[in-house]
Amino acid sequence: MYVIIKILGFLFLFYNISFAQSSISSESQICISCHEMVTPGIVKDWKVGVHSKITLKEALSKDSLSRKVNSSPSFKNRDIVIGCAECHTLNPESHKDTFDHNGFKVHIVVSPKDCAVCHSKEVEEYDKNLMSKAYTNLKDNPLYYKLVKSSLEPNPNILSENDACLACHGTKVEVKGEEIRNTQMGEMKFPILLGWANNGVGRINPDDSKGACTSCHPRHSFSMEIARKPYTCSQCHKGPDVPAYKVYMVSKHGNIYSSKGAEMNFNNTPWKVGEDFKAPTCAVCHVSLLVDSNNNVIVERTHQMNDRLSWRIFGLIYAHPHPKDSDTTKIKNKAGLPLPTELTGEFVKEFLIDEKEMEKRENKMKSICMTCHTSSWVEAHFVKFHNTIKTTNEQTLEATKILLEAWKKGVANASCIFDEAIEKMWVEQWLFYANSVRFASAMGGADYGVFEMGRWYLNKNIQNMKDWLLFLLKKK
Amino acid sequence: MYVIIKILGFLFLFYNISFAQSSISSESQICISCHEMVTPGIVKDWKVGVHSKITLKEALSKDSLSRKVNSSPSFKNRDIVIGCAECHTLNPESHKDTFDHNGFKVHIVVSPKDCAVCHSKEVEEYDKNLMSKAYTNLKDNPLYYKLVKSSLEPNPNILSENDACLACHGTKVEVKGEEIRNTQMGEMKFPILLGWANNGVGRINPDDSKGACTSCHPRHSFSMEIARKPYTCSQCHKGPDVPAYKVYMVSKHGNIYSSKGAEMNFNNTPWKVGEDFKAPTCAVCHVSLLVDSNNNVIVERTHQMNDRLSWRIFGLIYAHPHPKDSDTTKIKNKAGLPLPTELTGEFVKEFLIDEKEMEKRENKMKSICMTCHTSSWVEAHFVKFHNTIKTTNEQTLEATKILLEAWKKGVANASCIFDEAIEKMWVEQWLFYANSVRFASAMGGADYGVFEMGRWYLNKNIQNMKDWLLFLLKKK
Amino acid sequence: MYVIIKILGFLFLFYNISFAQSSISSESQICISCHEMVTPGIVKDWKVGVHSKITLKEALSKDSLSRKVNSSPSFKNRDIVIGCAECHTLNPESHKDTFDHNGFKVHIVVSPKDCAVCHSKEVEEYDKNLMSKAYTNLKDNPLYYKLVKSSLEPNPNILSENDACLACHGTKVEVKGEEIRNTQMGEMKFPILLGWANNGVGRINPDDSKGACTSCHPRHSFSMEIARKPYTCSQCHKGPDVPAYKVYMVSKHGNIYSSKGAEMNFNNTPWKVGEDFKAPTCAVCHVSLLVDSNNNVIVERTHQMNDRLSWRIFGLIYAHPHPKDSDTTKIKNKAGLPLPTELTGEFVKEFLIDEKEMEKRENKMKSICMTCHTSSWVEAHFVKFHNTIKTTNEQTLEATKILLEAWKKGVANASCIFDEAIEKMWVEQWLFYANSVRFASAMGGADYGVFEMGRWYLNKNIQNMKDWLLFLLKKK
Repeated sequence: MYVIIKILGFLFLFYNISFAQSSISSESQICISCHEMVTPGIVKDWKVGVHSKITLKEALSKDSLSRKVNSSPSFKNRDIVIGCAECHTLNPESHKDTFDHNGFKVHIVVSPKDCAVCHSKEVEEYDKNLMSKAYTNLKDNPLYYKLVKSSLEPNPNILSENDACLACHGTKVEVKGEEIRNTQMGEMKFPILLGWANNGVGRINPDDSKGACTSCHPRHSFSMEIARKPYTCSQCHKGPDVPAYKVYMVSKHGNIYSSKGAEMNFNNTPWKVGEDFKAPTCAVCHVSLLVDSNNNVIVERTHQMNDRLSWRIFGLIYAHPHPKDSDTTKIKNKAGLPLPTELTGEFVKEFLIDEKEMEKRENKMKSICMTCHTSSWVEAHFVKFHNTIKTTNEQTLEATKILLEAWKKGVANASCIFDEAIEKMWVEQWLFYANSVRFASAMGGADYGVFEMGRWYLNKNIQNMKDWLLFLLKKK
Repeated sequence: MYVIIKILGFLFLFYNISFAQSSISSESQICISCHEMVTPGIVKDWKVGVHSKITLKEALSKDSLSRKVNSSPSFKNRDIVIGCAECHTLNPESHKDTFDHNGFKVHIVVSPKDCAVCHSKEVEEYDKNLMSKAYTNLKDNPLYYKLVKSSLEPNPNILSENDACLACHGTKVEVKGEEIRNTQMGEMKFPILLGWANNGVGRINPDDSKGACTSCHPRHSFSMEIARKPYTCSQCHKGPDVPAYKVYMVSKHGNIYSSKGAEMNFNNTPWKVGEDFKAPTCAVCHVSLLVDSNNNVIVERTHQMNDRLSWRIFGLIYAHPHPKDSDTTKIKNKAGLPLPTELTGEFVKEFLIDEKEMEKRENKMKSICMTCHTSSWVEAHFVKFHNTIKTTNEQTLEATKILLEAWKKGVANASCIFDEAIEKMWVEQWLFYANSVRFASAMGGADYGVFEMGRWYLNKNIQNMKDWLLFLLKKK
Repeated sequence: MYVIIKILGFLFLFYNISFAQSSISSESQICISCHEMVTPGIVKDWKVGVHSKITLKEALSKDSLSRKVNSSPSFKNRDIVIGCAECHTLNPESHKDTFDHNGFKVHIVVSPKDCAVCHSKEVEEYDKNLMSKAYTNLKDNPLYYKLVKSSLEPNPNILSENDACLACHGTKVEVKGEEIRNTQMGEMKFPILLGWANNGVGRINPDDSKGACTSCHPRHSFSMEIARKPYTCSQCHKGPDVPAYKVYMVSKHGNIYSSKGAEMNFNNTPWKVGEDFKAPTCAVCHVSLLVDSNNNVIVERTHQMNDRLSWRIFGLIYAHPHPKDSDTTKIKNKAGLPLPTELTGEFVKEFLIDEKEMEKRENKMKSICMTCHTSSWVEAHFVKFHNTIKTTNEQTLEATKILLEAWKKGVANASCIFDEAIEKMWVEQWLFYANSVRFASAMGGADYGVFEMGRWYLNKNIQNMKDWLLFLLKKK
């Protein structure tokens, strides 16, 4: 087997024209020689991406605004492009999924640590992003993990967890032995991966790193264009809990993007307001490096993503100032619950950013708004938005009071706060309806603040809970 | 400050090449000299729009079918294009938001009255459009306003109203003093606008006009293309109450638009059936001037929008013939309620168009259908559609009967008909499910007539209401 | 009238340049001479399609991989393109909707039997597709038909059926006399069609054939491109019962399609992995003929559509192996119900494909996955997917047990299992939530497996049903 592969690779080196550019490392050329046949889709996708087109030397020589490589990679040869072997054979000893593959020490799961060889700044920023801790913040928070478990009843298991919450949050990828599989190239040995088939944002990788850059930059073109388009965010942010994408799409911004997006430029770096794009996508406001026509920087690029956000409008269980640290497992409220707010709404301030930091972040966001809107518009928008945070928190409190009464009267049991019908109604109050209203308010999402999971339901749910409590109480 | 601006403008006049076309008025050139820097997005957007590209003289000289300017504007100079100053300094005395801005009397909120200087016909038509009265028809109808208020409980306030219902319906924009703000150009004074940050269709403007042309023609390109694409309508018509966009997108028409829209022409005037578009968007059926290949007019342009519609399928609380007048606050049913139907379904005929007018409007719509469909198809479609109006009204009546019983038996209180759980179930019967089914029937919306907010829920809701009433009645 | 038409056609033959290609049959030229004026949209659409551009001879001479015509059509003249008359005057005697139209025997409803003259293989395959029996499988299954009827209560009628379930399933199109209608060409006689205005997949046509090729290949371009895009499938597969489209759109595949689809080629035959498309659409996995860069066939084209599918994840009432036969009316479970599973979950094996066939089908699907994914990814995906089938079936059983208790205790009536509130909750357990979770698991649909109609509701519904039963039982 191994010999055949070697011969194939060898033949390839001499005869293949389409790839025989001196800029592809000889190792990657051997990979391609087989994978061009066995997984043609991946190879073609890589070919259209930047990694296959630009050498390290060229990438490193770009001016500071358009440069994307911010570390000095350890590759000896800087005249190569980044091919298969450059990533899949990096630091083989730190990857538990490394296996012998035709003479190479290959690992399957390329991790942020691997990407950091060239893109260290992005990986460092991403470490401060709540998303990078999406696995641990969910599974190592005993309260949230109860929500996971109770939602999978009567048959919770790890495969269901991986298929449900952890599809977005990221799984823990572990190696459990090896097995021999029949392939187009004959029998070959591969590691068995538990938790695999996952691109979640907080994935625990076999090298113990957290996250998956491919969540937003899909393999193997690792396209910036795709990450800048709203469909990428929709992968995880379209449900009733975080309806960001749905809200965006009915907003004026979303309308203009849908109507005129085909004429916009999603590949330019830096990204020019009004020229490259005429309405913001998610990335414009939350991630990208933006400049005006004279290349003055409006905001720097950030993979932390919440440093332009003051409020965490995703209520847990109330909307609150953003946590200081992306690791939220350390947060405890006065009642001892691992929540950033009390059940009655007060913020657990010591773990949350202060007002000064909030103002700083909001001002960053405003500086983006003001490239198209006057201060009158922007200030008025935020006045309305702050009111919405306040009122939706009040409406969450209203539902909480009913639940507290149910617990007190003994018709619901607080030992798990997520598993009974009336408790689930309460969860929807903050997780679905209050969140929906706040996302709608933040982006101009019209009906998502009203009839589509919005205020209509916020109030209806309170009335339903009242009656449900009544029914539970009747002749107990 | 003022002097600097003047100098800047002056320099601009002599040196700026990109804008120094003689066709931009000197006033607008001064605006641009600063705003190109402080709000580059707006300026770029204006530059790609028609307003920046065609002089008044050219616009007025177009042939009648392709002409969009239908009034003889009062501007002395007809060799200019329409720039910032042309709109934002019009009739300064009638705009309460007019303020001194670098030597100009500028108002922030450009209103339909301003647009009417050139586009009087569209503004006149729009005045007959129910949407132009969306603010007053909601807020000045005591019954509907109760629906607003009760939905915002327990903390209704004007900011929430503006962020919720009035986001689409339009807010009342009022001037409340002035304030000084720090800008990139130093400290400047601006009016404080209440109800601002709004593009709602029935917005009350500081010049007392109603509406916002920017609802559909977003600033500052005021694109017809965008208005003709369905995403514009989705801004307000995607929720469960008016799911027009969702229904359209799963219809055959929507499928063809999504699949082939990139090849259609959304800029031609008049709009040619089969050549410019091969499937209708919302605008085709409801707004646009359509012609056949020989430029024979199929239907005239209309901003009234309901003059091709016989039935108002948006039930209040039953589907009914369209109101005669766009101001619906004057409607009263026999029970004294400001509704176009009785609670038991009869139409309040004196305020609604008669059968002759209904036929006329339906025939207009059919003439559009028949550019692609034979009479067999079209007649059969409307037979089915009329049946759906009848049956969904009957299903609304069925739910109403249960509510009437709840009121009679004293387990619900009719003083406000929208605030209790069982009343809210009833509201969803007509506002969500019956509407959804009718929209689906009108456009071929498949599952929106069945499982997606459709007939499944129409019937399930009746069963739920029956049981809920039972639970309320048990050992009262 | 007739004479005028003839003269018109005659004039057309000599003078019309745009259509006077010798390749259009003289019969079709006569059709076009009028319909170019009366239904310009159809004619233009036909003109951009393949049927108008390629003669039979050319179509028949293509190599086997790119050839789409697989029968030897009975047309004498093979130098013609396929125009109006070629289809609408085929086998006039077998079409009950044939009528005299300006000297021709024209039928309105072109059926799969007509299409089979050239495309026999596709029509034969489609006959094995469950969709081809969508009308009979629904209406001739007494249990399912009860679901239809009870959902339309209190006023079921045939027009509502046609507008609801049968919009997608297909109607029965019948001729009920003739009538004279006023047309642009004067008074003309047309057949009256019942069940008309329908493109449903299992439509019963006036020639007794089943199906409508236009469900996916819309008139009159009969575009393959449109059928290959996911919007076509969305027409019927977007609701909570079969949320395939919604799930796809938030999947990684859907994201890449939305972001990069404009650069893909939807017209090539055969369809090349990685070159023509870089992410699968519905058609890639379920229908199309796929080849690699060297034109090696990965999978053959199929209009059966389930021969790459082992499990029918659309639960009735549990997910089960696919039925052997597309006619499912003959299936009976032990309890005598026309269901492929028992109410308690066991499969009715004799009517379902066996494990060997399941493996064969799953392997076909895997061969597609593996053009872009390694075996590690693909095997792990299917392990997760099979777990989801098992657990969702268990969660359906959990809800069924509650319903069985309600029946046993006499608070619900099993004579119709779909018409009471608690029964409808049970229906949603398998029809909405379990289905949604399975579709999400199959395609990577993130929140559709969790909060958006997913596992959250699977569990919440069980809790709700428990309480609802409690309320029903209290002081009966």
